[in-house]
Amino acid sequence: MGTLILALDFGGTKLSAAIANKGDMVWQDHQRAFSAPHANAQQDLQIMLSLAHAMLAGEKPAAVGVSFGGPVDFTTGTVRLSHHVPGWENFPLKTILETAFGAPVWVDNDANVAALGEHRFGAGRGYSAICYLTVSTGVGGGWILNSQPWRGAGGMAGEIGHMTVDPKGPLCLCGKRGCVERLASGPYMAADARAALHPPTAERTPGGEALLSLANGDPAQITAQLNAEAAARGNEFAWTFLKRSAWALGVGIGNAANQINPQRFILGGGVTKSGERYWEEIRHTALVTALPEVHFEGAPAELGDDAPLWGAVALTFEPS
Amino acid sequence: MGTLILALDFGGTKLSAAIANKGDMVWQDHQRAFSAPHANAQQDLQIMLSLAHAMLAGEKPAAVGVSFGGPVDFTTGTVRLSHHVPGWENFPLKTILETAFGAPVWVDNDANVAALGEHRFGAGRGYSAICYLTVSTGVGGGWILNSQPWRGAGGMAGEIGHMTVDPKGPLCLCGKRGCVERLASGPYMAADARAALHPPTAERTPGGEALLSLANGDPAQITAQLNAEAAARGNEFAWTFLKRSAWALGVGIGNAANQINPQRFILGGGVTKSGERYWEEIRHTALVTALPEVHFEGAPAELGDDAPLWGAVALTFEPS
Repeated sequence: MGTLILALDFGGTKLSAAIANKGDMVWQDHQRAFSAPHANAQQDLQIMLSLAHAMLAGEKPAAVGVSFGGPVDFTTGTVRLSHHVPGWENFPLKTILETAFGAPVWVDNDANVAALGEHRFGAGRGYSAICYLTVSTGVGGGWILNSQPWRGAGGMAGEIGHMTVDPKGPLCLCGKRGCVERLASGPYMAADARAALHPPTAERTPGGEALLSLANGDPAQITAQLNAEAAARGNEFAWTFLKRSAWALGVGIGNAANQINPQRFILGGGVTKSGERYWEEIRHTALVTALPEVHFEGAPAELGDDAPLWGAVALTFEPS
Repeated sequence: MGTLILALDFGGTKLSAAIANKGDMVWQDHQRAFSAPHANAQQDLQIMLSLAHAMLAGEKPAAVGVSFGGPVDFTTGTVRLSHHVPGWENFPLKTILETAFGAPVWVDNDANVAALGEHRFGAGRGYSAICYLTVSTGVGGGWILNSQPWRGAGGMAGEIGHMTVDPKGPLCLCGKRGCVERLASGPYMAADARAALHPPTAERTPGGEALLSLANGDPAQITAQLNAEAAARGNEFAWTFLKRSAWALGVGIGNAANQINPQRFILGGGVTKSGERYWEEIRHTALVTALPEVHFEGAPAELGDDAPLWGAVALTFEPS
């Protein structure tokens, strides 16, 4: 039976599976597939099982670790729901996978699992208290306290994305105003830049014209990444939105530091690849938000898209 | 030698000492003294030692627990400083008290100790994850996670008072705008009410006249307590300030719930005795700030002014 660990990552649109020998830091195999458009839970599960079985080629894993993109009851391994894919409501994923693979299974949500991955294998190694933040389509977070995942009483800890940082700010999908996620995440940032271009009078929006021409004149082509590229080229219109994103994240980090006083914040996700000026703005805002006695470091995530898979491996090492 | 526990509470202006037998829930003796005006650390320490020695009457305590009103390095038992009394900078309180009493000593800051007190003996009994908040001259906080104090990497966790909740709000002593403490604490609330009365034209500040007359016409007599009394009598001018205090605290609680997901928030301190309308405003704001999936309870502290002393007793039971 050996020490083969199977790691599964159920993302919103992407399914990843990998296998590694316990103790190794390289994958023996690693496969990805995309969900079908309008997929449901059963379809995603079937794709994932096919990926995994093909990879295992009849071998039985010693343990299975699972990252799921949505709230999970870690104790029972039951998915509460997915915000992207229907059919995951109260889905007993742990039980089903234990039957499918004949091995013990651990399931947790992606932010917690990625935090664990970075702690065991990435930018969090050697620290006992970290906060992992991922900024991409949303803003997710996970805590490691006393070197163990802190999931919260109901498994909901780490929702730094829905910290209110500007009560008079724009409306978030969650119903509140000025959440970190509303200001910092990629799609909202792009939407705000698009909205500021309308009506597209170059006079009223200095720099907006240049951003629009980067987008081939089509506002719909403005993404957070394009906006960051424009900002990196010195476009101040684009920088306005990127700066506000960095500011919101910096306030979130400073507030979190004042509350929990971790040693290090680890930042991952596509938006955090927006360049040095963006990082400098986060750093500055976080430092002025935190009390002078509250010390912390900031560091980029090291495991990239593989953080949840490595965290899923690490889940199988945990005491429970 | 037995099981006599000595508990000491160094407040900003007040010194308290008490003794209890381990396992008892009543004090065998309990004494208080006020610091001299412009006292320094040595004077406060001498008063405390006198109180304690008189109380012990030659008996040797089995252990000593200490609550200190300021940041403390819990590991070494060294006081970092007091914001009220000079001379406490890097003061080795644990070492000095161990020599004075010939017994092991634990020292921690008052908010952490009060959180521990409420957890072991008060409104936090039976919960594994609580956040204790005290709202009086400032806003302090302490965490119990996994049924143990969470002090943070540098002992600075729990500074919910300096969470930014309104970046365009009034300036706080810490240099930032719109901190929870700036909006929620008693002296700031009273100062804002006084400032709104000036110039004291009753026409411009409806209800202000009534508050002023409660204060015998002297704005300097307006305290948070008086303001709360006026609000309780239906004075909407006073309620404006009390409501904002409750709002700031509610946002702080909701944001903290989203981040850490504790089971229960326990609220103590003078300002939290401002009546049902105040509590209802906190509850409402905290609920709309927290995500719908993030559940928590709110409850008043049970131990009142004795929370730090009972927490000091509990400190002596801890593994280290």
